[in-house]
Amino acid sequence: MPSISQRGNSMPPSPIRKLVPFAEAAKSRGTKVYHLNIGQPDIETPKPMLDAVRHSDFKILEYTHSAGNESYRRKLTGYYKRFGLDIDHTEIIVTTGGSEALLFGFMACLDPGDEIIVPEPFYANYNGFAVEANVSIVPVPSEIETGFALPPIEDFEKMITPRTKAILICSPNNPTGYLYSREEMEVLKQICLKHNLFLFSDEAYREFCYDGVNISALHLDGLSDNVVVFDTISKRYSACGARIGAVVTHNRRILDAVMKFAQARLSPPTFAQIAAEAGVDLPENYFDEIKAEYQSRRDLLVKRLNAMPGVFCPNPGGAFYAMARLPIDDADKFCQWLLESFSHEGQTVMMAPGTGFYSTPGRGKQEVRMAYVLNLESIDKAMDCLQQALTVYPGKQ
Amino acid sequence: MPSISQRGNSMPPSPIRKLVPFAEAAKSRGTKVYHLNIGQPDIETPKPMLDAVRHSDFKILEYTHSAGNESYRRKLTGYYKRFGLDIDHTEIIVTTGGSEALLFGFMACLDPGDEIIVPEPFYANYNGFAVEANVSIVPVPSEIETGFALPPIEDFEKMITPRTKAILICSPNNPTGYLYSREEMEVLKQICLKHNLFLFSDEAYREFCYDGVNISALHLDGLSDNVVVFDTISKRYSACGARIGAVVTHNRRILDAVMKFAQARLSPPTFAQIAAEAGVDLPENYFDEIKAEYQSRRDLLVKRLNAMPGVFCPNPGGAFYAMARLPIDDADKFCQWLLESFSHEGQTVMMAPGTGFYSTPGRGKQEVRMAYVLNLESIDKAMDCLQQALTVYPGKQ
Repeated sequence: MPSISQRGNSMPPSPIRKLVPFAEAAKSRGTKVYHLNIGQPDIETPKPMLDAVRHSDFKILEYTHSAGNESYRRKLTGYYKRFGLDIDHTEIIVTTGGSEALLFGFMACLDPGDEIIVPEPFYANYNGFAVEANVSIVPVPSEIETGFALPPIEDFEKMITPRTKAILICSPNNPTGYLYSREEMEVLKQICLKHNLFLFSDEAYREFCYDGVNISALHLDGLSDNVVVFDTISKRYSACGARIGAVVTHNRRILDAVMKFAQARLSPPTFAQIAAEAGVDLPENYFDEIKAEYQSRRDLLVKRLNAMPGVFCPNPGGAFYAMARLPIDDADKFCQWLLESFSHEGQTVMMAPGTGFYSTPGRGKQEVRMAYVLNLESIDKAMDCLQQALTVYPGKQ
Repeated sequence: MPSISQRGNSMPPSPIRKLVPFAEAAKSRGTKVYHLNIGQPDIETPKPMLDAVRHSDFKILEYTHSAGNESYRRKLTGYYKRFGLDIDHTEIIVTTGGSEALLFGFMACLDPGDEIIVPEPFYANYNGFAVEANVSIVPVPSEIETGFALPPIEDFEKMITPRTKAILICSPNNPTGYLYSREEMEVLKQICLKHNLFLFSDEAYREFCYDGVNISALHLDGLSDNVVVFDTISKRYSACGARIGAVVTHNRRILDAVMKFAQARLSPPTFAQIAAEAGVDLPENYFDEIKAEYQSRRDLLVKRLNAMPGVFCPNPGGAFYAMARLPIDDADKFCQWLLESFSHEGQTVMMAPGTGFYSTPGRGKQEVRMAYVLNLESIDKAMDCLQQALTVYPGKQ
């Protein structure tokens, strides 16, 4: 039998999903599991988006343009304008989710062996795309004590080698919820200009800012050839299953290269582009209610966490995640134990162990990521479970 | 400005789409263009598939399982059973089109620098996926005189090196329409067993066999650990815009590796999986009418071509493509000239130059690929154009 590739072997499994079998076993025992482990919101997808697909009347489900329907891209220019961004429709290439946007960006800008500096903790699937593109992720630790603020400029510069080609950020951040300030974005700009680096900016959570405003990398003057934004409608409209994202950049050479990758896979999904286009037409106040809902969830979650003895959770400024430090020996063990050996009034909670979001060994062992994608009542009950669990967990510290 | 990657530079642009600006210019001059250049069928997508999406009533467009909805995968086992294939639903990983299936197969089985032997001419986008996976495509020429039959076994063995890891075939073939016989499939099996190679089998056109039956690589006894099938519903149901495909293999190690790539990109598109699942429920005779339609198109196309002086077109046994040799100097120039400088009764024809399907320099210069995805009347008129063009083309030979 021929052997599979080293790449296949070294590809990391999803750290978020590895606890799934334990969750399934818990459910089959009749335990209710609160899923704070994955960023699948319980918010309904806007009905006009689903209706646009349901009322479509074409007869052939055809390929679209490899860069996405022109009508959709033209509408997206209006979407970006609301954030003060002047983007031409030819500067947008629609992708199959933010995932493909990241992959295309890596492929178009980086060669095998190149390095990307990423503040950690970071979205675990960056590791997977790095393996696919055969590039290395070089972590720069951020600290829970500062709420995961941008690490000092010296920490970045220490990590720069001749192979460093890019810095990858995500703001508001998954997994920390941290929202970079304008000052922090300016620091990133200076590093990128000084060292001639791409600034890759994952802006999946652009709308979800509770304290302060989102600064897009595209807002940074004088950096337009360096900036590549990875976008997605997954979280924006609670439409994770659409698989519609975008690469957005002013750099024509990157656009030309990304376009070739886009042509090879022919087109992004047709049905979902119809939904996405309808999303742009939603009234601008659509996000007001959604943001208020997420903010009240965040407030409850953070309050409950910080009221537990030995627990520390910085207040995240955006997205819908929080990283908390718990008085435990090992977050992987604890999260598994919650599903395998614990229940409180027939209920338990599923969280993502912090270790999956770090690539520096040993980091995140006392941290967990929680996605506040459930309603207030569920978050309250999930926190009851966690509070109780921390009093009886054998590995508590 | 940081420079883009070598990979981005070396990524081939789509050879099929490069003539698009000339076609657009022709149309803007009022010339009608018959599109035989791309495999986008004019056949309507089965209404039950579109209706399944239009009648869906979920409220949240959620991620599906990374391997695709279990209900869809279970149904697919019944689909494969109709071809005498015993596939478990855990042996299917649903992908975003056949494109992603190919990429995942390359990534999971091959390392950078590995080689895949591919009979040429071959589907041009294999080159793109090879660049993405950083592997080399090694062509073994097949000949138009034999109708593009499997090249002799010695030709394959001449090309095998220590880096050869796989043979990639497509039957019925894009671009030639050739349908490998059972004997040819057995030859491939012997080569793969003798040299411990994967047999990658692109079976996008499984249903479209007019002379003889399709032999799937999964039918080959004793080769199950070597075989990886790349599947898609794009052509099967005229649903190119769905972007639903699959990796199918009995090899658990490959499945485990592919699953990790699938997890990194979260899930295939949700809407389109609903359509795909409805496709499996179509009555089995659905394909009878479609096949009869394509066969009559093929018969007309091939008859018209071979009646033109100096033109040779072998009769393709399947798919909906034909490669023809024309009495011309250069297919790229000719196809561009057809759009730029020619019209017959206000009409012209767009075809794909043969060179785009070869990686051996110089091959395919007198060949064009035609996709018979238009109705009989349009094919007839397109052939009128071609016939007339061949009498007046300045580079005729």
